[in-house]
Amino acid sequence: MITVVLLGAGNVATHLFKAFLASEEVEIKQWYNRNLKTIDKYKNKVNVTDNLSSLVEADIYILAVSDDAIEDLSKQLPFENRLVVHTSGSTSLYAVDMKQKRGVFYPLQTFSKAADLNFNDVPICVEALKKTDLPILKNLAKAIGSKSHKVNSDQRQALHLAAVFVNNFTNQLYRIAHEITEENGAEFNILKPLIKETANKIESLSPYMAQTGPALRNDKKTIKRHLKQLESDEHKAVYHLLTKSIKKTHGIR
Amino acid sequence: MITVVLLGAGNVATHLFKAFLASEEVEIKQWYNRNLKTIDKYKNKVNVTDNLSSLVEADIYILAVSDDAIEDLSKQLPFENRLVVHTSGSTSLYAVDMKQKRGVFYPLQTFSKAADLNFNDVPICVEALKKTDLPILKNLAKAIGSKSHKVNSDQRQALHLAAVFVNNFTNQLYRIAHEITEENGAEFNILKPLIKETANKIESLSPYMAQTGPALRNDKKTIKRHLKQLESDEHKAVYHLLTKSIKKTHGIR
Repeated sequence: MITVVLLGAGNVATHLFKAFLASEEVEIKQWYNRNLKTIDKYKNKVNVTDNLSSLVEADIYILAVSDDAIEDLSKQLPFENRLVVHTSGSTSLYAVDMKQKRGVFYPLQTFSKAADLNFNDVPICVEALKKTDLPILKNLAKAIGSKSHKVNSDQRQALHLAAVFVNNFTNQLYRIAHEITEENGAEFNILKPLIKETANKIESLSPYMAQTGPALRNDKKTIKRHLKQLESDEHKAVYHLLTKSIKKTHGIR
Repeated sequence: MITVVLLGAGNVATHLFKAFLASEEVEIKQWYNRNLKTIDKYKNKVNVTDNLSSLVEADIYILAVSDDAIEDLSKQLPFENRLVVHTSGSTSLYAVDMKQKRGVFYPLQTFSKAADLNFNDVPICVEALKKTDLPILKNLAKAIGSKSHKVNSDQRQALHLAAVFVNNFTNQLYRIAHEITEENGAEFNILKPLIKETANKIESLSPYMAQTGPALRNDKKTIKRHLKQLESDEHKAVYHLLTKSIKKTHGIR
């Protein structure tokens, strides 16, 4: 049994809470939040507190708070030499106060408060200053059904940055497609199978090998017509830049 | 039973051939290709030919050839007033010669020669100059398990253009993520669950509602660090432009 104290009440904290609660191998000793109201509704399921000086003992303290709050919160912890991890993709391991055994437990996934999340689909990047602290972090990931990956800080920060491209930026391309279809009275829904297939395809092919379309074929006629068809300058700029990027990747002039 | 003659031997033609062959409601009367060698291996399954003057009668003639070849090929057909459709997303309905009953049968999906395709996941956009020709096109789609959508040419061309954003451009973002992870010795594979979840999310949320991340939060500190982290000017330009695009969509200054 791994015992944890959870700190914070945002999306990541809430999803972790539910996953820990559902796991037979994890015991949530306590849930801390600065504002007790947010977590008060869970008080029948877990010991909740807004008082740092009343924190109980546990194997792992998880700081699932905003990037900017990690350092400050970790400084205020009223104990020493316990395993304290944050859940941020971009924040240094050293943001955790040096009095503690420091680590990172970064779930690489997109979290919305509404949607339920299956942690089987959430890879967790684990990092620990002391090698001996790694196994318990890996076991915690396993206890909620997640695959864990030992990374260093450079790798984690690269993954966090790459995640912005495959998640936020990709989603914005979906949004632009939504705008293009709506402007022409077409149904965005018709594109959904293509969106899924595009994501599924890289399961078996590298993005390099999976590429198709007018930029790769250097089909100037179609590219020209597409640019003419686009009504917004912003959409035109995105079309231009990503067409150029595809051509560069594939050595097309 | 719907009888078809298939013309062309590229990816779309080959996938349609297999789907028609597997359907109990479709009979492929003949398969034409300019170069007989490409389709010769199927001669035990279907009547193959490279001679347009020997084309047999059928309910539908499907021109699954490159955009540029549609007009010319349709002019050469040695008959009149039969239903002739092309499979292009961007080509005018009027590219089919006016001697014929004209239509479009456009499967909106990404086709690779290698991967087998389940037409259940392929929406087909159908269009016909004469309304009475629509039902048989819809039935042909149904016969291979596809959902059909009646569109007009503007809608079809908007879908084709939007498809470039959600397929080719999205795939290029995957590629850039691949480059970023490799440059830092991180595993691109760790991003795959996020890629899938990003695509799945829009099943229940609009892209507008599904957006998250530093651009939406207007998290200037993270954006600045990400731009510094990026090594390539091209990656920086993509990051800049899509961040700007997200901000514009969500009215953030």
